[in-house]
Amino acid sequence: MTIGVLGGGQLGRMLAMAGQTLDQRFVFLDPSPDATARHVGNLSVGAYDDEEHLSELARKSDVVTYEFENVPVTSARFLNELVHVYPPPRALEVSQDRVVEKEFFARLGIPTPAFAAVSTRAELEAAVARLGLPAVLKTRRFGYDGKGQCVLHTNDDASHAWDAIGSVALILEAFSPFEREMSILSVRGTTGETRFWPLVENEHRGGILRRSLPQSNAWTPKLQALAEAHAARVLEELDYVGVLAIELFVKNGEILVNEMAPRVHNSGHWTIEGSETSQFENHVRALLGLPLGSTRMIDHVGMLNVIGRMPLHADVLAVDGAHLHVYGKEAARGRKIGHVTVRAKTREDLAQKLETLVPIVDESLAARD
Amino acid sequence: MTIGVLGGGQLGRMLAMAGQTLDQRFVFLDPSPDATARHVGNLSVGAYDDEEHLSELARKSDVVTYEFENVPVTSARFLNELVHVYPPPRALEVSQDRVVEKEFFARLGIPTPAFAAVSTRAELEAAVARLGLPAVLKTRRFGYDGKGQCVLHTNDDASHAWDAIGSVALILEAFSPFEREMSILSVRGTTGETRFWPLVENEHRGGILRRSLPQSNAWTPKLQALAEAHAARVLEELDYVGVLAIELFVKNGEILVNEMAPRVHNSGHWTIEGSETSQFENHVRALLGLPLGSTRMIDHVGMLNVIGRMPLHADVLAVDGAHLHVYGKEAARGRKIGHVTVRAKTREDLAQKLETLVPIVDESLAARD
Repeated sequence: MTIGVLGGGQLGRMLAMAGQTLDQRFVFLDPSPDATARHVGNLSVGAYDDEEHLSELARKSDVVTYEFENVPVTSARFLNELVHVYPPPRALEVSQDRVVEKEFFARLGIPTPAFAAVSTRAELEAAVARLGLPAVLKTRRFGYDGKGQCVLHTNDDASHAWDAIGSVALILEAFSPFEREMSILSVRGTTGETRFWPLVENEHRGGILRRSLPQSNAWTPKLQALAEAHAARVLEELDYVGVLAIELFVKNGEILVNEMAPRVHNSGHWTIEGSETSQFENHVRALLGLPLGSTRMIDHVGMLNVIGRMPLHADVLAVDGAHLHVYGKEAARGRKIGHVTVRAKTREDLAQKLETLVPIVDESLAARD
Repeated sequence: MTIGVLGGGQLGRMLAMAGQTLDQRFVFLDPSPDATARHVGNLSVGAYDDEEHLSELARKSDVVTYEFENVPVTSARFLNELVHVYPPPRALEVSQDRVVEKEFFARLGIPTPAFAAVSTRAELEAAVARLGLPAVLKTRRFGYDGKGQCVLHTNDDASHAWDAIGSVALILEAFSPFEREMSILSVRGTTGETRFWPLVENEHRGGILRRSLPQSNAWTPKLQALAEAHAARVLEELDYVGVLAIELFVKNGEILVNEMAPRVHNSGHWTIEGSETSQFENHVRALLGLPLGSTRMIDHVGMLNVIGRMPLHADVLAVDGAHLHVYGKEAARGRKIGHVTVRAKTREDLAQKLETLVPIVDESLAARD
């Protein structure tokens, strides 16, 4: 079978690497001729809204997926007329607009931070008055890695932020003084079968994911059950097929859902070595209508992103249990160019290995900090 | 970096899949345009002794390895003048001739079954008289998967076997009434660093590997130490770089070494899911001069070869913890076209899963049995 993928970044690349084991072929559509997935499949270079390229992708593919959630919904719907597109284009549509997304969660009874759509200066002032400060002003669409958002502490901040980004549709969100950022990765098959990986605790810096720890100290069975219930509602409502990531804020054992990504997700990279079945393999299985694999955790694992600069391979690999994933992208300030997953027999051993690895990998962050 | 590989079968394919994680490129030389590694790297179609193709491979590669031990030694040596070839061509030379190989083991003090070189009918008669019956008559060169060998029970058998295969150089080996067939997988880096995986118990049928169980019930620390000592001597003597597999007969806690394969090996496929570092990743690390990874076992694992016919993917994957590897080769009687590794939290759970999987996978053997 041939799987078509909108987007040819590292997510598509790792998807193809998982699919190769089952002898699947991959074709990618990406506007960049340097898209890193070109090394593991066929790359068509073209715009995501070019109907000729989309038709060609559909012709070559038995099923189509996407690895980038800012693909135009119209393109996904266009493709869906020609070939199955998973996850369903509706998931893309919901996730692309923060207001639509939060209204969707609210309708399903899933708690989110308080929010207000903002399209004029007056609406911003009203929203600030209603939600209080601090609050976070974000673009409704096309934000990623902390881009297009700022925290407002004062009315002056609000005014300046409006001047800076007020030209596009915005959302104001009550600032959640959360204790932890977590994410729940889930997957649903064509038969409706669902699986959930253990909750992951995530650490961001400058808006970019830096570390993920599945089933960390903050994990409780109650939190897991709560997160799974939320994810299950979303999967069901969207008649979802594939991997879904939902980002959460956690405080006092309560969960507020922040946003979702209808695709494989950076906070699930640990699953390659750390779970019986990786998010990539289960996404492929879902696309092909195959039974989903177990999501149990294998030993103890942690994941560190490599951002901006690649450490010496030998320094990373000298740590027993460390696995270096190199994306084959040119290094650039703030760019994710790889990740390291470390696996250990005990929690204590994992902590020690992470302590060794963090300075080796974080050196790659030096340029940014 | 680009890694050149002589041979483009499933071993080369899985080598490339492991190397992709470190963003390595692969070029393969194989006489067949259908060589399955073509899906994960660039394939040059050409004979292994075609100097033009070999030169081209050397030009394109930073280092060269092989995944097939019947590559001509002269080709490996030719390449070695142009680029590093690992494992060293001498390892290839030793492993290609059963007499040279057993003399090599003997010189290192490594016990093997008694043997005699046989090149005339008179020599065969003398060898039978000396070693006794039953004994195994094999071609000295180019045997694999039980091809080119037969067990002799009577003098008549010997005479018939001579008529059948006496046209090439032969070896007669004393028949070892072993209790177990095992193999030890090891790896040595460019700095001399070595690692050993746990001993694997192997079950053959019709001369073809059917199942591998690492650290099975028959495993003891003493056997492991003995096997590692033998492997270490071979690695050291050959100034070896890369993965080496050694097949052993075990009886009463004693080991007789049968043969070696200077490459990644079918009995090491379980390491992809079942070891901290797979044989493929460690072979790549060795080629690149990187630190070797831990060879510890992850949970409990077993490996079943898929031979002749592919089971329904869904049947295999419905077993939690089962991982199906499809080689992308055309199915044919007696041909290895994939394997299944199953991983489980406990030994009991593994046994149960294997019991479920064996009939699913073995159906693929039906045509042969």
